[in-house]
Parts: sequence; C-alpha cells; structure tokens
Amino acid sequence: MGEFELIARYFEPLSRGRPSSYLVLGPGDDCAIQRVDPGAELVFSVDTLVAGVHFPASYDPENLGWRSLAVAASDLAAMGADPVCFTLALTLPDIDEAWLTGFARGLSRAADRFGLLLAGGDTTRGPLTLSLQVHGTVPSGTAIRRSGACPGDLVCVSGTLGDAGEALRWLDVNHPGPDEAFVLARYHRPQPRLELGRALRGYASAAIDISDGLLADLGHILDASGVGARLELEQVPLSDALMRLAGESAAMRAVVAGDDYELCVTMAPETWQILPQACRNQLTVVGRITEESGLRLFSHGAELHQAARGYDHFGATE
Amino acid sequence: MGEFELIARYFEPLSRGRPSSYLVLGPGDDCAIQRVDPGAELVFSVDTLVAGVHFPASYDPENLGWRSLAVAASDLAAMGADPVCFTLALTLPDIDEAWLTGFARGLSRAADRFGLLLAGGDTTRGPLTLSLQVHGTVPSGTAIRRSGACPGDLVCVSGTLGDAGEALRWLDVNHPGPDEAFVLARYHRPQPRLELGRALRGYASAAIDISDGLLADLGHILDASGVGARLELEQVPLSDALMRLAGESAAMRAVVAGDDYELCVTMAPETWQILPQACRNQLTVVGRITEESGLRLFSHGAELHQAARGYDHFGATE
Repeated sequence: MGEFELIARYFEPLSRGRPSSYLVLGPGDDCAIQRVDPGAELVFSVDTLVAGVHFPASYDPENLGWRSLAVAASDLAAMGADPVCFTLALTLPDIDEAWLTGFARGLSRAADRFGLLLAGGDTTRGPLTLSLQVHGTVPSGTAIRRSGACPGDLVCVSGTLGDAGEALRWLDVNHPGPDEAFVLARYHRPQPRLELGRALRGYASAAIDISDGLLADLGHILDASGVGARLELEQVPLSDALMRLAGESAAMRAVVAGDDYELCVTMAPETWQILPQACRNQLTVVGRITEESGLRLFSHGAELHQAARGYDHFGATE
Repeated sequence: MGEFELIARYFEPLSRGRPSSYLVLGPGDDCAIQRVDPGAELVFSVDTLVAGVHFPASYDPENLGWRSLAVAASDLAAMGADPVCFTLALTLPDIDEAWLTGFARGLSRAADRFGLLLAGGDTTRGPLTLSLQVHGTVPSGTAIRRSGACPGDLVCVSGTLGDAGEALRWLDVNHPGPDEAFVLARYHRPQPRLELGRALRGYASAAIDISDGLLADLGHILDASGVGARLELEQVPLSDALMRLAGESAAMRAVVAGDDYELCVTMAPETWQILPQACRNQLTVVGRITEESGLRLFSHGAELHQAARGYDHFGATE
C-alpha cells in the first residue's frame, strides 16, 4: 500500500462525516484551508508522542489514537477555545493494518467527541512518532492565558487529581478490580475539559491543563504571572478509587501526578461568586495566589517541603 | 539543560525580531494565537522529516534547519499564500549544543527570508524527527488548488528542474567544482517560490510544488482536476550546470527528480497573455492540459514510455 492509499483508507473518513463550515479544504492538496470568523482569533498547539518515551511501542493503538488527540485538545480547553480541526504527522516503522485500524478507530472516536475534523497531515516511514496540531478559535482577546493570575485570586482545579498517575502502577494487571479499572480508564481515555474551558472564558484570570502535575503546571502560571501561591493539600479533590488504592499518600501523590488533563484555573474571589453554578460544580478551590513568589504547600496549617516539580523531557539537573 | 530552557535559548529568538501583528501570542502558553484578517482564510500544511529516511543523521544541522522550513513553506507558495508563522515539533536523541546552534541558525535564516515567525512547538526526546507546520493566509476563495486545471490550459514550471536531484550524486564530494557547488546549493538551500505563488493568485488555474518530481506532482494536479496532460521534454527548463553534469540525460532526469521545490502551475492561454511580465519571466511553458486522462511525455514529436512517477514514502508496489 502506498502513502496516498494509506491516508485515504484510514484517515480521510476523519475529515468528513460531520460537516464543518470552518474547514474549507481538508486533506489532499498542498495545504488545508480554514475559515476564521471576523472577530475571532485562531488558537493552536502541537504535541508530540514518541514510542518508547511517551508510551510503550506495544501500547494499545486504539487508546493511543484517543489519547494523542485528547492530550492535544486539552491545550485548547486550557485557552477556552472552541475546537475546529487538527493535523496529524504520523511516522510509522511499517504498514501494520491491524495497528492502523485500531489507531484510526480511537482517533476517530476522540475526534467525534471533541468536535475536531482532520484537516491534513503527513505520513512518513521511521520510528513510531505522532505530532498532532489542534486548531480552535476564540472571540478576539478572550483566550485564557497563563499570565493573568493576580494576588488574592483563588486557585481551582477541575475533576479529581492523581487518578491517571495511579494508573501507571496498574498498567500490567490482567484482571483489574473496579478501582484499578477506574484509574486505568482515566489514564487511557483522558477527557479534555473543552466545555468547561469555553465556559470559563471571561471568568478565569489564568488557566493551564494539568499534564505534568499540579505543582509543575501551576508553577507555569506563577512564572508567567509573576506571582506565587499557597495550596492546601486537604482541599485537593481525590476520587474514592484513588483514596482506596493509595491510602494516606493519595493527596501528596495527586499534586505531583501528571496525565490527568484536568484544568487548573485562577479567578478573583468575587468572580467565583458570580460564576455559573454548572461551572462551579466542576471546580474545587485548592489554594490562593500570593504576591510573594514561590509555590507553598500546606497540610493542616503546616508547610510541607515542596516535592519534585513534575516531568521534564530532558531531565533537567539544574 | 531542561526542555523549557532549551526552547528559550535556541528557539524563542525566532518568535521575536520582526514584529508581526498577526502573531498575537507566540511560544510559552498552552496555545499560540494568530489573528486572521476579516475576508482572509488560514492556509496551513505540515511536513515531517525523519533522520535516516529524509536525511542522513550526520546531515549538516544548519542546512537541515533551512531545508526543513523551506520544504514546508513551499506548500504555502503552491497555494499562493502569504506566509505568517510556523510551529516546530522537534524530537531529539539528546541535547547536542553544537547541533542545536547550527540547526537554529539555519532555521532562523530561513524564517527571516520567508517571513515566518515561530509561533510554538514541542520538544521531546527520541529518534531525530522534525515536523513543521506552516501557516499563511489568502483573501477568501483565492487559494490556488490542485483541482482547477482545464483542458487547453498551459502547463508551466518555475526556475530550472533536476538540479537538486543531480546534487544527490555529489553529496560526498570534498572539493566540488562550480557546477557541482551550484546543484548542491539547490539541494541544501531550496528557495520556495513564495513571491511567485502570491503573484499567481487570480491567474493560475491549479498549482503544486515539485517535491517528488514533475511527473509525479503534475500527476496529482491531473488526478485532482480529472484531466490529462502532454509534456514536451525539450521545453523542460534546465540549468547550464545540469546540462554540463548530466549531458544528454539531463531533461529525462529533470522530469523525475524531486527536491527542487519549484512550482508547476496551469493557466488558460489567454491568461498567460495578460500575466504580468515579471511572472512570465519566471515561468516556462512545458506542455498542455488535455481532456483525455493520463500524462504523456513527448520528445521531438515522438511519445516516450513514461518513467517512474516519483517517490512514495512506503514504496508502493501497485
């Protein structure tokens, strides 16, 4: 099978099906074409996943298809963007039709769920690597950046933290119990908070998605905003499954665990008061932004020594 | 050095320098933000280069930096788009500062030349792989597609063909003569025809950039447009250097050679008559679109057996 036939068979269906007036021209030409409404801005982000680094080469292709798009779409959620389309740069060691069928199925289900059409891509031979770039839009000037956090703002997180990190301990279990199955699903099928992100436009002062752990990712907001924060460990939202699996260490693990793809947002206390109830129900206040720089973690009123600040792809030693 | 420091040191300068009112937010947040004028459309394309497949791992990093952006920008030229910005997904086996310095220099010079700002990216550890996505804009509805060629249209190409393909025979020469140096420069430092592409908006009925060879790439126009073509081998523009290096086989090699990144465009004969002289000077008429499908190649009035239709990344056997 040649490159062009491969793309047509597995991936072209992803650019059809749900018509989008915003994708003017999909795969098959030198470029794709996207319409952006007057008064809107394009918001975009690229994420790369490498076999043997971000996932084992034997990782289930259907989960990989879902995960790779979910991870990328989560960046749109963190900006409060409306999803539009994505490109896929796929490097494959060979043509494995079973693998491609599974991968395309996972990708397709995620694309449907998240409202993203395949706009184009490139297929090359080489070590298994995926780069996905997602495109969304926001009304001009309304994207939620990392740099807007102000002293006194509340620090909030969506959902529960630490589940996907806990799953790493159970990846090789053959017959997982219900708690293990719950955290494994959180790892394999992350649900980017696209609806919540959009709903937070105009309310949140800053936002980031939690890919490398709350401490690391909140740290990026603090750096970009020139502020600090204090977090209350007891306020970190935990699933019942994680509490049963991890016991007393659950909260401490949850603040350093990555892969949850929940949102961390900051917001003035008076904005929290007027936030629609549907949003407030999905958020938990876990701390406060401080004028003093640095991220301080408290438990029962006592300060804890700060743990590692998450994953760095080149293992920083500084 | 950590991922974030790496990006800041080598690549952040690429997002500054030449202010662009279109890049609202560059690297460093969850997403980048691009402004698209009312009445304009976004045009974008992604290209992947893999070490050991598209270039040897020992390939000069400065040439690689230039080439990787030139190859991607050439797709914008083929649509007639105005270049705006690009993203870089860079997978590296390790932090090699000499390599990164050279790569960033080549990339930076190309970005300046082509008018493209770095908007964002992702840096990961793994086998050396680059995916670049370029963004441009066109006034709505004016992008030059592959599908617009009509029977009777002239087939034109820019510049000279076959030089970069010829260079492959001289890559390992230590002291190249002037002809070898000329074709090597054509290979290492391709010049995407951005100005010409933009100038052809409203004139060309179809366009593609020549990456896989004229026969293969014109074939894509024919497939997309549902037409055929006949080419006159003697009309294919050749450089003096190629004619001296390749002798009588120069033209036949030139129509199957890739990597030139010239444009192949089609145009009604009456449009050719009113085409601005500056454009006409950069184009050579090499054939004509036919109603009958298929691509036929003629030399001195006699039809030639059609050669291989160019490079397929998965070596199609069909």
